Amino acid sequence: MEKDSRVSLIIIGGGEDKNAHMEILEDVVRLSGGKDANIAIITTATNYPLEVGEQYKRIFYDIGANLVDTLNIESRKEANNKHLLRNLEDIKCLFFTGGDQLRISSILGGTEFHRYIQQRIKKDLIVAGTSAGASMMSEVMVVAGDDEEAPRKSTVKLAPGMGFIKGVIIDQHFNQRGRIGRLLGAVAQNPYALGIGIDEDTAIIMNDKEEIEVIGSGVITIVDGKEITYTNISEQNQHEPLAITGVKVHILPEGYRYSLINRKTIIDEK
Amino acid sequence: MEKDSRVSLIIIGGGEDKNAHMEILEDVVRLSGGKDANIAIITTATNYPLEVGEQYKRIFYDIGANLVDTLNIESRKEANNKHLLRNLEDIKCLFFTGGDQLRISSILGGTEFHRYIQQRIKKDLIVAGTSAGASMMSEVMVVAGDDEEAPRKSTVKLAPGMGFIKGVIIDQHFNQRGRIGRLLGAVAQNPYALGIGIDEDTAIIMNDKEEIEVIGSGVITIVDGKEITYTNISEQNQHEPLAITGVKVHILPEGYRYSLINRKTIIDEK
Repeated sequence: MEKDSRVSLIIIGGGEDKNAHMEILEDVVRLSGGKDANIAIITTATNYPLEVGEQYKRIFYDIGANLVDTLNIESRKEANNKHLLRNLEDIKCLFFTGGDQLRISSILGGTEFHRYIQQRIKKDLIVAGTSAGASMMSEVMVVAGDDEEAPRKSTVKLAPGMGFIKGVIIDQHFNQRGRIGRLLGAVAQNPYALGIGIDEDTAIIMNDKEEIEVIGSGVITIVDGKEITYTNISEQNQHEPLAITGVKVHILPEGYRYSLINRKTIIDEK
Repeated sequence: MEKDSRVSLIIIGGGEDKNAHMEILEDVVRLSGGKDANIAIITTATNYPLEVGEQYKRIFYDIGANLVDTLNIESRKEANNKHLLRNLEDIKCLFFTGGDQLRISSILGGTEFHRYIQQRIKKDLIVAGTSAGASMMSEVMVVAGDDEEAPRKSTVKLAPGMGFIKGVIIDQHFNQRGRIGRLLGAVAQNPYALGIGIDEDTAIIMNDKEEIEVIGSGVITIVDGKEITYTNISEQNQHEPLAITGVKVHILPEGYRYSLINRKTIIDEK
């Protein structure tokens, strides 16, 4: 990341290394201030909030964070509690665990907590998330869809996400679960949105200039539909296979950067 | 397919329906002459030549073929036997079963049988193949590579194929086994070659104008590297992730046609 830019998002494709080589989680702590890092773990997505919360808490303390809280917000009422927000003033990074992205959007969407994040992310907050915590980042998020299947029109189910990243659809566990078909289906529905598939143990770091940088052991797959010449997505019969021509695909591993605004790989420093 | 063209290849992505809805195998019989169809099944790829050969024989007779032979060529000596070739004069279609594509290339490559096919395919022979029998069709074939993995430089192992289709690399069981990563790796090595990933129960029919048409229940994925702007494939360290920008991808289901010569979807009739 460039020195004069500020990190606002860390979006992890799930399955980040939690043992030997915790590069991604170490970066979460480092970018949040290292030994001064104050992190709140949001376990809303998972059905095992205590176990998952404790696991990340231990890891972030092991890495050297200053303060690690776990916040298991389980209802919209809690998410609208202003007392909760006052406790977040010293937090530098919100870390969303995996689970079900619809739990995040249905419990947190449109609440005071959501509005608080939207305001502070413009100033000094980092929002990090893995797996479901990655999917929920975009305005439109992938909820379900067949893995390892031929792209079909009806394969992919979309829902409104939390909107921390604009004009993008995120998918996670990408190559590991063979999800290119469902991401193509999502992008074909509106090529305005750029598809970004993130592998396991891989993440993108976004700065306030909407530039992303790849970290981790896998790759990201960028699906750019702006040059699509033909698709049958709007025709009848939701179960028939998808046709789509002229999609541009980029595969980027660690160290590569991409401008979401220009839709271009940033190669000046390579 | 256009009326004034002649079918030369039927390339099947494996897992073609053999029970209720045998569209692809029915097309093999139909294009080979229907009730006049004489088909030879080549079981060289499989370790179970009797079982596999008998299964296809029964199916092709059930569909209504005139004559179905099974040819289990297991050695280069057999493949050089001119008596074998004389028995093929009345055969309209050679059908290669699945198994191991290296068995096909190592046993049949460069033999009299191979030369015979190359000559007759220009005149009146149809070569059909499924799974390994599909991979072996191209000049360079995919032998092995990790499924459902982030694209890595070393992931894909290539070998010389039988060369019935030029300038193309075929991969099969495509979306079902999450193989986009390994096909991208293959195409990045030489964007001269067009990558074609064929799903299960899906096939391409090629005519003598090098136009392909899709049939079956899945899709084909065409990976066109001619506009690649950057790749790290030639740099050091074979195990690091692949970077590749500017790949063009097309997804085509049944009924769609594509010109291999022009690298364009043929949409005039849609």
